[in-house]
Amino acid sequence: MNQREEYSSLANLTNQEAEELCQDLRRRIIQVVSQTGGHLASNLGVVELTVALHRVYDTGRDRLVFDVGHQCYVHKILTGRNGQMETLRTFGGVAGFPKPAESVHDACIAGHASTAVSTALGMAIARTRLGEDYRVVALLGDGSLTGGLAYEGLSMAGQSGEPLVVILNDNGMSINASMGGMAQYLAKQRLKPQYLRAKEVYRKILGATPPGRVLHRGIHRVKEGIKASLLPCEMFEGMGFQYMGPVDGHDVKGLTRLLRYAASVDGPVLLHVKTVKGKGFRPAEKNPDDYHGIGPFQKDSGALLRPKGEESFSARFGRDLADLARQDGRVCAITAAMTAGTGLTDFAQEFPERFFDVGIAEEHAATMAAGMAKQGMIPVFAVYSTFFQRSYDMLIHDIAIDHLHAVFCVDRAGLVGDDGETHHGLFDPGYLSTVPGMTVLSPASLDELTAMLKQAVHGIAGPVAVRYPRGGEDRYQEDHSGSPACRLRQGSDLTLVTFGTLTGTVLAVARRLEEAGISAEVIKLNQIIPLPTQEVLESLRKTGRLLVAQECVDMGSPGQGLLAAAAAQGLCLKGSALCSCGTSFVPHGTIPQLRALCGLDEESIFQKARKVVAYGG
Amino acid sequence: MNQREEYSSLANLTNQEAEELCQDLRRRIIQVVSQTGGHLASNLGVVELTVALHRVYDTGRDRLVFDVGHQCYVHKILTGRNGQMETLRTFGGVAGFPKPAESVHDACIAGHASTAVSTALGMAIARTRLGEDYRVVALLGDGSLTGGLAYEGLSMAGQSGEPLVVILNDNGMSINASMGGMAQYLAKQRLKPQYLRAKEVYRKILGATPPGRVLHRGIHRVKEGIKASLLPCEMFEGMGFQYMGPVDGHDVKGLTRLLRYAASVDGPVLLHVKTVKGKGFRPAEKNPDDYHGIGPFQKDSGALLRPKGEESFSARFGRDLADLARQDGRVCAITAAMTAGTGLTDFAQEFPERFFDVGIAEEHAATMAAGMAKQGMIPVFAVYSTFFQRSYDMLIHDIAIDHLHAVFCVDRAGLVGDDGETHHGLFDPGYLSTVPGMTVLSPASLDELTAMLKQAVHGIAGPVAVRYPRGGEDRYQEDHSGSPACRLRQGSDLTLVTFGTLTGTVLAVARRLEEAGISAEVIKLNQIIPLPTQEVLESLRKTGRLLVAQECVDMGSPGQGLLAAAAAQGLCLKGSALCSCGTSFVPHGTIPQLRALCGLDEESIFQKARKVVAYGG
Repeated sequence: MNQREEYSSLANLTNQEAEELCQDLRRRIIQVVSQTGGHLASNLGVVELTVALHRVYDTGRDRLVFDVGHQCYVHKILTGRNGQMETLRTFGGVAGFPKPAESVHDACIAGHASTAVSTALGMAIARTRLGEDYRVVALLGDGSLTGGLAYEGLSMAGQSGEPLVVILNDNGMSINASMGGMAQYLAKQRLKPQYLRAKEVYRKILGATPPGRVLHRGIHRVKEGIKASLLPCEMFEGMGFQYMGPVDGHDVKGLTRLLRYAASVDGPVLLHVKTVKGKGFRPAEKNPDDYHGIGPFQKDSGALLRPKGEESFSARFGRDLADLARQDGRVCAITAAMTAGTGLTDFAQEFPERFFDVGIAEEHAATMAAGMAKQGMIPVFAVYSTFFQRSYDMLIHDIAIDHLHAVFCVDRAGLVGDDGETHHGLFDPGYLSTVPGMTVLSPASLDELTAMLKQAVHGIAGPVAVRYPRGGEDRYQEDHSGSPACRLRQGSDLTLVTFGTLTGTVLAVARRLEEAGISAEVIKLNQIIPLPTQEVLESLRKTGRLLVAQECVDMGSPGQGLLAAAAAQGLCLKGSALCSCGTSFVPHGTIPQLRALCGLDEESIFQKARKVVAYGG
Repeated sequence: MNQREEYSSLANLTNQEAEELCQDLRRRIIQVVSQTGGHLASNLGVVELTVALHRVYDTGRDRLVFDVGHQCYVHKILTGRNGQMETLRTFGGVAGFPKPAESVHDACIAGHASTAVSTALGMAIARTRLGEDYRVVALLGDGSLTGGLAYEGLSMAGQSGEPLVVILNDNGMSINASMGGMAQYLAKQRLKPQYLRAKEVYRKILGATPPGRVLHRGIHRVKEGIKASLLPCEMFEGMGFQYMGPVDGHDVKGLTRLLRYAASVDGPVLLHVKTVKGKGFRPAEKNPDDYHGIGPFQKDSGALLRPKGEESFSARFGRDLADLARQDGRVCAITAAMTAGTGLTDFAQEFPERFFDVGIAEEHAATMAAGMAKQGMIPVFAVYSTFFQRSYDMLIHDIAIDHLHAVFCVDRAGLVGDDGETHHGLFDPGYLSTVPGMTVLSPASLDELTAMLKQAVHGIAGPVAVRYPRGGEDRYQEDHSGSPACRLRQGSDLTLVTFGTLTGTVLAVARRLEEAGISAEVIKLNQIIPLPTQEVLESLRKTGRLLVAQECVDMGSPGQGLLAAAAAQGLCLKGSALCSCGTSFVPHGTIPQLRALCGLDEESIFQKARKVVAYGG
């Protein structure tokens, strides 16, 4: 109700009111993100664009499809969630990405890149085939354009004839400057001098034309007249889009006019909008990369309130890989638009010839790695667990069939915290386990990462992954690598199995169990694929009880594999349990909150362990 | 050795000899495929191109990277495998796709589409970084260009500056006429009238220029002079490629000259070649779709020797889906360039408005389905199991998080036979099991497919897959659908669990066991995800012994899930075994040969069952 009212008022705003609203929104975004942290620069860049969209579209009925939705804050404020923005990205609060479960105004899930055109096309087709009459608009950044999925979607959308507006939010950069040919191509479009002239003509005529049907005819005439200087982007027009642009993405009045026209076209339109990341907040405008995803900061200076803490796994990885690259000229690094996130910034500077940022193209990254590996290099693809899902087929087809030696450093494995459902790395133990000949190592400490990365690069044949979490160590700082599994503690009543940074928690549980009179054996898996079942089974023959603590979903997990191995060996367990992320998606929150939610905190594991022992008597 | 000698001779062929060789090769291809079956039309289309490639490149050292390698027969004949071509696609014989394990001349695995540019770029980078000096050339069809991976590869290759030749083999069609914008774009390039004129100029000058360095300068001059009429493909040039074409792909002399030039360019070149599928064999030229992948045929008339047999699962699916579409206007069908293969030809004709061929773009197909499902349609994406691997991330991110109701008809599930490693559908039970909220049904007969498809479309919420094999029924023709699991036979010594078309074999095993004095209970799973464990565990409490027969790899399989469930319930198995496709890839051959290889034939299962019973005493 309230949300619909806000719409009416937005549709009826005067241009001056809209401009004032933009100023308010910009202040509000800075205020909120300075407290909660989150994606700052990208949201400041789309203030005018989002307001223009809400003047033209009724998102409660029309479908506004985001692509990597972290630029949705303005949209959330405008759709009834302004009062809750202080809870942004906190447990139970407003999500940092569009979330249909949160509001009817959020058309779809949008945490991975390059999905918007495909989703929007599906919606537009459904609209037409089911005889309904809402409008569909997709908003994607130039970074998303580096992904093949966007191209697949554009290619079909252009030919579909479906009324559908695709807005290309071109801020001249993806998360890292995208290296792809398409980015270069767009950049050239921007640089041509005719652009400004064409824009002037456009503006003048648009400014003098009344809205509605007359306006559309007016624009049509303009387009014909100045086509030669309008720089139609041949590829988009060749695909079947009516191409408009590039236009100033901070002119809310002009944007609204163009969007009204675009929304009325009876076919696919591509509107190319130029925006400035961090617009209106000097520190972010100056260093948009630093203000992409950030923690709380000082509102005036932009200074981060929480200085960077202890060394992260990503940072250690970057340092270690540079060491390996110094010793071996075959070692190279690949990232899919996550240079800083995966800790490769220094590597990129020291080894520019052996560093490859492929853009948001995880499929290509894996297949290119196959070609490199086949010809004698040692490619190391650093990639977030959740995005690595996109390489699944390439891993099987291009790498595993020929058993090529490519290394995958799977960052953000496990719970990632405040980015929520779309970003947790809970599936890689399952999907990687299905790949023949795959080895997956799981360090629990930074020193183990150092040792295992070396092993992965030089000590193991075929495809190898090393998986590690976001952030740094958690209570455990030892190095017990070297064998696929190691026994950290002897015991006779119960076998506790874990891997990765849960190890410290599980050791604490074992100590508490001892105090409670229960003798727990702790086995840490250093290698989770293939599973070192013999070590665990040996322990189980003694204890007869198994509890596996693992930060992943149950399906295809090491815990499930160990249970299957026990049954296959005819072992009778007196009790067993999995402490895991279960069988569904996990929302956003802090890691401790989410571990508690999943029963992966010390207390929950302790209680479950007691139950397992009690069950067997 | 012998292979290298052949090279020398090819490099030194005169143009006339090369033309004669092409005629011989064409005859040989027709002769071989008429006996063995295989991919005919695509190989006839690349005879001249392949000969030209082998005149210019030494594939024992240079890297010739195929994209969907079923057009590699000419290449195989020219690289020492002519004498073995009668074994093409037979068990232990020459593979129908490039296979590095078979010959050093096969640069990489190439069974899935759109991979070649990425692989070739990786190889070119490795070559340059490791200071070696071989050349790299990628050969891809226009169908492969509909896949986003090709775009990702082209985008980076163009910018890389790496010497690398990409040949676009444009035969004006993918497996089905591709619907994408890029295909339209290329088609327009061909249709422009200047093309012929430009080609004439090109020819005249090329014909009069001596080979070698002078030739290159000559071509450069030509290019400058006639640039306006040469139709540079703006997108490719914008990406950073030197674009040449379109050129006649059946002129071996002209192709050789252009390839010599392209191979000498110090940067990425895209050579656009026009070929005719089925060239030189009238029936295939006339109906290239019918002669894409075929069985043995009559060499002169082209008449197929083995008329189509009993109804296939694909055919039944197409018929059933049309029935459902007639009753419900929300039902629509999606295919990724596999209209005929998935049985949708009639559906496409009857419901053109609800039929969507997206090209070779499984990622887009799944995400578009998400948009359709979100807005109230019921999308049914029919896709081969092995290609569905490409939708894995979209299935999780775009569909499962929002628990959208999209249906996936997973065709070619299990062993597919003569296409081998790259085409078997052995992974879907594993990777689909990791997707939260996913349901997977497994019909064992055509009537069960009918029932389960109906259930999937109208009776289950969230994402649902129905998996079924290539071909038709195998011994079992009953309908026991309706519950997640059904007991087909009572017994007390052993529980035999299976699903899909292995059911007939397992029932036969049970009968043989009875004759041998062993009482086997047979449980057929109709639903493999989530696993109906209770039904199986109930049986296991009685028999204490489990044998699961399944046409998939072990990892993440129903068999593994059942073992884990047994252990989790504290059940002590006196014996157990999995009859499955193990933990590695399976080569090509007939289904019976491959089942025997994997231990999935009646005799192997019977022997294993006896062992399981003997083991427990």
